[in-house]
Amino acid sequence: MSQDTSHSVEFADIEAAMERLDDPTVVKRTPVERSTSLESMTGAEEVHLKLEQLQWTGSFKTRGAYNRIRTCLEAEEGTVERVVAASAGNHAQGVALAATKLGVDSTIVMPKNAPQTKVDATRGYGATVELVGKDFQEAMRYAKGEVSDPGVEFVHAYDDPAIVAGQGTLGVEMAEDVPSLDTVVVPIGGGGLISGIATAFAELGPETRIVGVQAAGAATVPESLAKGIPVTLEEVDTIADGIATGGISELTLSIIEEHVDEVVTVTNSEIADAVLVLMERAKQVVEGAGAASVAAIRSDALDVSGERVMPLLCGGNLDMTMLRAVLIHALTRRSQLLRLRVRIDDRPGKMTEISGVIADHGANIQNVRHDRALEDLDVGEAYLVFQVETTGAGHAANIVDSIAEHGYEVEVVNRAP
Amino acid sequence: MSQDTSHSVEFADIEAAMERLDDPTVVKRTPVERSTSLESMTGAEEVHLKLEQLQWTGSFKTRGAYNRIRTCLEAEEGTVERVVAASAGNHAQGVALAATKLGVDSTIVMPKNAPQTKVDATRGYGATVELVGKDFQEAMRYAKGEVSDPGVEFVHAYDDPAIVAGQGTLGVEMAEDVPSLDTVVVPIGGGGLISGIATAFAELGPETRIVGVQAAGAATVPESLAKGIPVTLEEVDTIADGIATGGISELTLSIIEEHVDEVVTVTNSEIADAVLVLMERAKQVVEGAGAASVAAIRSDALDVSGERVMPLLCGGNLDMTMLRAVLIHALTRRSQLLRLRVRIDDRPGKMTEISGVIADHGANIQNVRHDRALEDLDVGEAYLVFQVETTGAGHAANIVDSIAEHGYEVEVVNRAP
Repeated sequence: MSQDTSHSVEFADIEAAMERLDDPTVVKRTPVERSTSLESMTGAEEVHLKLEQLQWTGSFKTRGAYNRIRTCLEAEEGTVERVVAASAGNHAQGVALAATKLGVDSTIVMPKNAPQTKVDATRGYGATVELVGKDFQEAMRYAKGEVSDPGVEFVHAYDDPAIVAGQGTLGVEMAEDVPSLDTVVVPIGGGGLISGIATAFAELGPETRIVGVQAAGAATVPESLAKGIPVTLEEVDTIADGIATGGISELTLSIIEEHVDEVVTVTNSEIADAVLVLMERAKQVVEGAGAASVAAIRSDALDVSGERVMPLLCGGNLDMTMLRAVLIHALTRRSQLLRLRVRIDDRPGKMTEISGVIADHGANIQNVRHDRALEDLDVGEAYLVFQVETTGAGHAANIVDSIAEHGYEVEVVNRAP
Repeated sequence: MSQDTSHSVEFADIEAAMERLDDPTVVKRTPVERSTSLESMTGAEEVHLKLEQLQWTGSFKTRGAYNRIRTCLEAEEGTVERVVAASAGNHAQGVALAATKLGVDSTIVMPKNAPQTKVDATRGYGATVELVGKDFQEAMRYAKGEVSDPGVEFVHAYDDPAIVAGQGTLGVEMAEDVPSLDTVVVPIGGGGLISGIATAFAELGPETRIVGVQAAGAATVPESLAKGIPVTLEEVDTIADGIATGGISELTLSIIEEHVDEVVTVTNSEIADAVLVLMERAKQVVEGAGAASVAAIRSDALDVSGERVMPLLCGGNLDMTMLRAVLIHALTRRSQLLRLRVRIDDRPGKMTEISGVIADHGANIQNVRHDRALEDLDVGEAYLVFQVETTGAGHAANIVDSIAEHGYEVEVVNRAP
């Protein structure tokens, strides 16, 4: 495709961004930790996790926002008094912190259903938050209408060379942190992050394979690459809201075409598993978007066996409601959360007897309910449904066996609530 | 109290341990991350989190175990073929990894109700796991009986100078990581960890205040200090199982007396809050014992205002069942998980109407149930109990108001399941 070269991003732009990002209270160098657990799981020789979720504001977004706003302030014409952005996610917090640190007011427009924790966090970084519209598109339209005044600048989340160059500083760190990597794995939402990182590696590690990851329910890049134009999705379906943008831009598509070697997709279930693995093994809290890179190296979509690989954990602002869902799913799958349906004669004493059997195994009953109205029950029969915490599959099997040995028909009902 | 000085630990012992711990695939230097969130919460000038939960095996325990086993191997008489320990926690994994890396067999005795994940992890580090007895005391008795054979050594979790010296290497790191700290905060179970760290600081940072933290339901140190002998508890009540030892030893008591400035206690609720704060703000998964240090600086028990303070996050092996309980508690308190009881005439269409009101607010209904048999209901009335996910307290209040405006008696039932 034809490309507006005036909009492209060069390594020199990233170098300039490195110089602008000189305040470690705004952007810090984030650590890298090796994970032998992920090495065992993937067959990689070395897995180095880049812990960008430990960045201030919990994601990489401050890098681009700070570079963008500071570039504006440096421009000759620039007397920027206020910046405006539309985001209910990490971009909101990144813009808020960057603006505050640079002495500029910020207005962040979020849809009315934005999580209170995100609103509070963004206000905490000094922004004025306006709640407008029922979804992101409405918030975005309103925000763009705000910037007609002189002295007010709109800060886009990815479709901006200064944003891309700012995110590219993360690529410089990664290339320096562990030299001569075989593969780096980077989540893609709007493409600003991978564009910056790929541009940095084109200069500093041209032999390194750059792999992008999208959520299967929000994957626009493969088709965009095939068609040569950015393809957008009206609706996205992913638990990784940080990369649920619905499309990339011409700018980021052109850089991805030039510098990214491979783009793979991962499912919601793979992302949820990766969130859990990172918590249990790496002791890191990473949001769905941030865990997508680890989901990719654990999936069949990407082979890293024998390689030295660096998955980027790009954000850690994991919604606690989502985490609860991930946990319940995982505990159920491991039989640590067990729902047992026991058929009984509906007479006094049955619950005592069965709960006694469960207690003998040292398992904790969370709740019990009766089901009486089901059509497969005879009159005078009922189901007792126990939700039980166990130590794992073996423990669960022993409990089921014991209840059966007491003469009851017992069944594991798979999905816990 | 009188003290067997032959059992004491000198700084030279810690220096010797530093030399023994020369293999970064067994013990690595863990990073330190500053938390501005905790600075705001506590009034401290600087809060530096020592992330020892990123240590191999997820806790500091490998330090002591490796020093202990290697010391045995170095001793002239020593032809140690196997080590034995009793633990269902972090000590198990530490001994297993240390022994395997040193080419020694290990047998870890755990009570029969040990969580499957702990059994699997310990086997994963190369140990033979034996499940014996109904609790830790029975496992311990069995384990001690195992060591009558020549060539078999018992590895205690804390009552051992070589263990204390090994944990002391963490104190050397902390003193070097951030020089001239005002306060370091260290969780206390059996006291091996704080004994080592306090001994290191006595040499490297004698001006630094050393504060120990115990769980209120397992606090034996204050009384032990008052009486001058180790006091034990038959039963402990804490969600921080990593520090639920029931008592310290004469060795660790004598070192605590000499080098620790202050011991405070924190409640289960404070520990649970600290686990959540560390996840949400610091993006770190820390077990209850590891979060106790952060619970302390957030509590009234310890004043760190204006100070440069380092809480030690000593372990990250957080049980996912426990995490689920912490999450549900926190979400309920923030009204992100809301249980609403609505009084209705028990006729068709009511559930549709009310669930429609909730849906209009963009809130997700998790489940609904009818309650019909309560004595405060008239005949023909019922309660509908909705469990709803919201974005926070404001959202929750709006939903309640809307249901009331539709003419229903509605009540928030506080405790979610």
